[in-house]
Amino acid sequence: MKFKLIKTDTNTNARLGEIETDHGKIQTPIFMPVGTIGSVKGISQPEIENDIKAQIILGNTYHLYLRPSTEILQQAGGLHKFMNWNKPILTDSGGFQVFSLSSNRKLKAEGAEFRSHIDGSKHLFTPEKVVDIQRIIGSDIMMGLDECPPGDCDYKYAKNSLKLTTDWLKRGVKHFRNTEPLYGHSQTFFPIVQGASFPELRRQAAMQVAELECEGNAIGGLSVGEPTEVMYEMTEVVNEILPTDKPRYLMGVGTPINILEGISRGVDMFDCVMPTRNGRNGMLFTSEGIINIKNKKWENDFSPIDPNGTSFVDTFYSKAYLRHLFVAKELLAMQIASIHNLAFYLELVKMAREHIEDGTFATWKNQMVNKLSSRL
Amino acid sequence: MKFKLIKTDTNTNARLGEIETDHGKIQTPIFMPVGTIGSVKGISQPEIENDIKAQIILGNTYHLYLRPSTEILQQAGGLHKFMNWNKPILTDSGGFQVFSLSSNRKLKAEGAEFRSHIDGSKHLFTPEKVVDIQRIIGSDIMMGLDECPPGDCDYKYAKNSLKLTTDWLKRGVKHFRNTEPLYGHSQTFFPIVQGASFPELRRQAAMQVAELECEGNAIGGLSVGEPTEVMYEMTEVVNEILPTDKPRYLMGVGTPINILEGISRGVDMFDCVMPTRNGRNGMLFTSEGIINIKNKKWENDFSPIDPNGTSFVDTFYSKAYLRHLFVAKELLAMQIASIHNLAFYLELVKMAREHIEDGTFATWKNQMVNKLSSRL
Repeated sequence: MKFKLIKTDTNTNARLGEIETDHGKIQTPIFMPVGTIGSVKGISQPEIENDIKAQIILGNTYHLYLRPSTEILQQAGGLHKFMNWNKPILTDSGGFQVFSLSSNRKLKAEGAEFRSHIDGSKHLFTPEKVVDIQRIIGSDIMMGLDECPPGDCDYKYAKNSLKLTTDWLKRGVKHFRNTEPLYGHSQTFFPIVQGASFPELRRQAAMQVAELECEGNAIGGLSVGEPTEVMYEMTEVVNEILPTDKPRYLMGVGTPINILEGISRGVDMFDCVMPTRNGRNGMLFTSEGIINIKNKKWENDFSPIDPNGTSFVDTFYSKAYLRHLFVAKELLAMQIASIHNLAFYLELVKMAREHIEDGTFATWKNQMVNKLSSRL
Repeated sequence: MKFKLIKTDTNTNARLGEIETDHGKIQTPIFMPVGTIGSVKGISQPEIENDIKAQIILGNTYHLYLRPSTEILQQAGGLHKFMNWNKPILTDSGGFQVFSLSSNRKLKAEGAEFRSHIDGSKHLFTPEKVVDIQRIIGSDIMMGLDECPPGDCDYKYAKNSLKLTTDWLKRGVKHFRNTEPLYGHSQTFFPIVQGASFPELRRQAAMQVAELECEGNAIGGLSVGEPTEVMYEMTEVVNEILPTDKPRYLMGVGTPINILEGISRGVDMFDCVMPTRNGRNGMLFTSEGIINIKNKKWENDFSPIDPNGTSFVDTFYSKAYLRHLFVAKELLAMQIASIHNLAFYLELVKMAREHIEDGTFATWKNQMVNKLSSRL
């Protein structure tokens, strides 16, 4: 993987960059649609590429490990071939899902023991094992195993947790460097900055992560219940330390506003289930504000879903029709809303890139933040 | 509406024809995907047109009347505009759903009283009212209100039911002829031949229907629990009487084999929820036989879903990937299977037309029937 820092904004810390992988280039700042179990929910691969204009998608190691399983993925020749997606893929390490989904999890120095949320079967994720799994998945960017502590944990918990994470990350990097890709394309490894809501721990974590000298770095453990301002503060603290010549990925974030604020603080990559999950529930993000399309007020509004939208659904379907589909619980409702929201997220980061390029990012961002928070 | 009978097969009663509506031409024999509540479940309109190659779709008057309601449909300028579908639409009369879905239904000479399956509200469908509703929907082809008796009803029930249906159809035609389309495109009205499984009643019904001198005729009350051979026999009996210069629509039928047997007996139009409903459940119809894609045997079969398939999903996705999506309960599974099945149905009737045209329908049909019944 190569990263080229093209420009840094003079008024903010926003950055324009380009990541090059064996599966193609990624313009940063970028948003990555979440393809949890090998599918971006409700959206076909041609739609992800052509309508949403995604440049990279995310897969969840925990989910893919359980289903379809590493055996099937290896036989398929990796996730790219299995799901027929030829652009870059990033996979998380599974740590977050172990803590949020599985039951009976047990942390040891060795790794995280857990029971599958599907059938209760017992599994162990070690830093080495999740590298091996991600070798089999064949993701272009893999993540190191970490512990993601609760957003409201105390200092002592956070400090011990960070110690474990740091140890795991070192073991992960080492194993990554001692192993080879399986399918002929190169893979890279991002360590993750943890440290909960404590600036001191975050700084320490960022320095330890920087010392691992990986090709890119991630910021984890945010957007997990802490106040938004704390998330922004932690991002700032960490980005003061993380090297500027490597991409920075803020994991699991967030709302359109969170993304603009993250970009403004020097983040290059984002992912979140919000556009698809909230979309399936009838919430549409648009350049004019948020729409709850289930509301009765849209019942006879035959105007396009989003006249400024870039995907075909935005002008092909009306608000009244989409509302009807939600009320009637039609599958197409979830598909349309998911395509719309993801296309909006990708358009938002595209506009951010354009405004960084022409030096108008700060003004534009402030205007957008005002609009994005209104409810239509 | 105009119907042109292009050719009748010499070895069977199969017919090649063309229906012309204000929303375009329909090559017959044709299969009509079911868009129950203004959406073919799980499939976008561009996919219906371009991937499935549907020439006409069906809407359910009962469902559309309840949701989004005639008020909304009228404000939208009809169903074509509401759902942005510019090809022909056929609507049923709602009779079938009144009997199969609603509770507390009560038949009177005036019409069918029923309670909504959604909110229990009380409604009355009269032959005149369902014409008015279909005027508001704006379907190119509307159906007359009928009673659809159970497949195993006795002679007395069937006879009385037919008397009611005949009366309703006369009133429906009369009201249709006394009313005008609302949106500038012409509409036509098909009466329905009932008579349960009694050849004598079916003949009588066919003669009564023929006397109404509508532009097309339908055969209803089949595929409702009676043996397949009885369905074929009733179709034959009815088609001996229905005029040859008008299209014949066998309602709610059926499996790929049912459709080929129906074509062979002189039927021109079909609709059925089977390709979408069974698709959503993992059953794929292919030219080589039926696939239950959930079976473990497909777990590591990385060959295309259907190498002979005509839609992009058939060669874009593998059996193993589609099986994985079903096992993981991903939305995309239902979308892929629905597109595949409908594209297969449309390709099947296209092949039938080609074989009628070149005089090889009978041989081809017999070969296909053998293949289609096998389980892969």
